[in-house]
Amino acid sequence: MARYQVILTYDGTEFSGFQRQKNLRTVQSEVEEVLRSLGWTGKSIISAGRTDTGVHAAGQVIAFDLEWSHSTDSLRNAINADLPFDVVARRVQEIQDNFHPRYDALARHYQYRIIVEPVRNPLRERYAWRIWPDVDIALLEQASEMLVGVHNFAAFGTPHARNRSTQREIFRAEWIRNENELLFNIIGNAFLYHMVRRLVAYQVEIGRGRLPLELLKKQLYTPGDTSAAGTAPAAGLCLMNVYYIGAVGEETYLNDLEVRQ
Amino acid sequence: MARYQVILTYDGTEFSGFQRQKNLRTVQSEVEEVLRSLGWTGKSIISAGRTDTGVHAAGQVIAFDLEWSHSTDSLRNAINADLPFDVVARRVQEIQDNFHPRYDALARHYQYRIIVEPVRNPLRERYAWRIWPDVDIALLEQASEMLVGVHNFAAFGTPHARNRSTQREIFRAEWIRNENELLFNIIGNAFLYHMVRRLVAYQVEIGRGRLPLELLKKQLYTPGDTSAAGTAPAAGLCLMNVYYIGAVGEETYLNDLEVRQ
Repeated sequence: MARYQVILTYDGTEFSGFQRQKNLRTVQSEVEEVLRSLGWTGKSIISAGRTDTGVHAAGQVIAFDLEWSHSTDSLRNAINADLPFDVVARRVQEIQDNFHPRYDALARHYQYRIIVEPVRNPLRERYAWRIWPDVDIALLEQASEMLVGVHNFAAFGTPHARNRSTQREIFRAEWIRNENELLFNIIGNAFLYHMVRRLVAYQVEIGRGRLPLELLKKQLYTPGDTSAAGTAPAAGLCLMNVYYIGAVGEETYLNDLEVRQ
Repeated sequence: MARYQVILTYDGTEFSGFQRQKNLRTVQSEVEEVLRSLGWTGKSIISAGRTDTGVHAAGQVIAFDLEWSHSTDSLRNAINADLPFDVVARRVQEIQDNFHPRYDALARHYQYRIIVEPVRNPLRERYAWRIWPDVDIALLEQASEMLVGVHNFAAFGTPHARNRSTQREIFRAEWIRNENELLFNIIGNAFLYHMVRRLVAYQVEIGRGRLPLELLKKQLYTPGDTSAAGTAPAAGLCLMNVYYIGAVGEETYLNDLEVRQ
């Protein structure tokens, strides 16, 4: 018996989120069903975090214990042969027995994609939030800079369990504009429920000039009610990567964070 | 009564192609159903060309005659309000009565997207063909250069009607590499059935070193049987734009071709 770490990529469109729920199609259920057919007898796989209905993942991380006598490549192939078209095991590796994808995670990288177009676009809206009219990218950039650091994000989300801390540390937050596409990258130690999507919606209100920049700073120090700004749609959000010491997701993101020795 | 030109964008995944077919979900059927609800009484809309099952379009062009007393913007909105999520009228404009999207077209621009990855990728394969191992981009570039000009493409497709010419003129053909993505852009006066996808498959065979570059040149002068190279999957193909004199699709592509006065 050994513990395996698996990096999952999925298109969230047709999933009712990651977490197992009765009578609903979720990523966890699909993966567990496949693992069971390979002899897995666990009660539940563990993951770095839950993604909501419609949210995508390029680098979700899960772990489970399995008796497997062949190579990790053959395990990956066996898993992928049975997974449906919209979820895949991108990488499989053996890992220390006490590895826990959620507790051991140092940081998570989420990306949110916006397209600025007046008419809906069937070729892009599966992976983006379409907005119109345009926003002021300079205001978005100033807003994202305010997010970096340790803040109380109670105004932008609720903890996954009651009465838990709403303090989180953001290591990086940036907007990148490429023609009519806006990409928001945010890397933090952890995130509250709906936090990224609410931060996106709030920043877009700032970028439209409907909320003053100073109000964001205020919300981070004296959390108020920001619900009027709404929650950006799930389709634009993607869990890009989860960072660990010594056992990490996509290497390309490692140096960004500089958490590895 | 006036003639309208409409630029359509659609995600081809869930369509059995453009052309109306009994009991199948096609782009033409969906559009005609919506037009009928707006008072259109024609027998058939006309289009720049048919796209196959699963092929996407950013700039398909159609035309129809309609009695419409409001603005073209309101017509666009009325059409889009009733079209399903995977097809949209990107632009609507009134056009000369004798405009024909197919006969008047000077050129079509198709784009084919390939990703080079060892494991399937649910976030990209809706709009790309995944291949592995990698190909030699220099060989692809040399292959695409050979395509430019007037050639007999009988080895790479069949005409849409029997006994018609298989001669076509390619104005531009190029491969662009961006990390693990390969984009093939081809602009020609017209295309045979399956021609772009067969040219892509053939070039990939060249790029893998399984077919010599010289054989492509030979096929263009003395057409033979190239079917062993196969047909690249529909998901990677997108009809980007159709060019007309004085009444054109996306302006951004206009200067590329330099067909306009």
